[in-house]
Amino acid sequence: MSSVINGVEVQELAVIPTGGGPVMHMMRPASPLFGPIGEVYFSEVEPGCVKAWKCHTRQTQRFAVPVGRLRIVLYDDRPDSPTRGMVMEIRLGRPDAYRLLLIPPRVWYGFTAEGAGPALVCNCPDLAHDPTEGLRKDVDSQDIPYQW
Amino acid sequence: MSSVINGVEVQELAVIPTGGGPVMHMMRPASPLFGPIGEVYFSEVEPGCVKAWKCHTRQTQRFAVPVGRLRIVLYDDRPDSPTRGMVMEIRLGRPDAYRLLLIPPRVWYGFTAEGAGPALVCNCPDLAHDPTEGLRKDVDSQDIPYQW
Repeated sequence: MSSVINGVEVQELAVIPTGGGPVMHMMRPASPLFGPIGEVYFSEVEPGCVKAWKCHTRQTQRFAVPVGRLRIVLYDDRPDSPTRGMVMEIRLGRPDAYRLLLIPPRVWYGFTAEGAGPALVCNCPDLAHDPTEGLRKDVDSQDIPYQW
Repeated sequence: MSSVINGVEVQELAVIPTGGGPVMHMMRPASPLFGPIGEVYFSEVEPGCVKAWKCHTRQTQRFAVPVGRLRIVLYDDRPDSPTRGMVMEIRLGRPDAYRLLLIPPRVWYGFTAEGAGPALVCNCPDLAHDPTEGLRKDVDSQDIPYQW
């Protein structure tokens, strides 16, 4: 992790061995990152592919990666943020990075799958999908100081 | 599907092609199966392994399988049910069975992974985990007329 962005939260999650395959926690009421869940969906990422850049003006993202390995990059261009201009890179996935990542509204994010197979992202945002509050930039946008 | 059990619901879910890998819906407010989500967790199932039998006295299960192939078997022994005694077998997984399965309280269930790789079950039950409301039977219990 090259820097920390204000409002981004990371929580390590339990992987519980059981006969036949593990149980993996994602959202639990005891977690400080728990709250209303507006929708649940998955994004599969093929190895080496990049999905970037996205930003939500109102929705908070909550990501976990139960399959594969994900590199996710965050960029803060919020004028009112104490970490404005910062880039944050974080890995999600088993065995050593099974964790919940909370991305607050107005922080840009993108991700790619590292490793041999696809990565599966599960997102449990606080609000339901609303196409009017999602923003995008091209993967090679000059507005964001990160090279994929 | 060999029979239908009262209160069990199945909804086909969208798999939306996008560059780098599909987006797959699970819980959406427009769905008749949407409602409060008490927790979110995953259960990975190694090929050929069986996880059975379980039953919840109060919690409703909502399953989808974004990775791999799952065979899930349900058994109704509710004394007040019009489908008492019925067994229901259903497949979950891509490409032809990406769907949401709702299992009401007091219906027994178990599952196994079919195919070459592990299956990943995501569950979005209506209530948080409570060990006092979960029941179990051995995989080879004579109480349930199904042979794994």
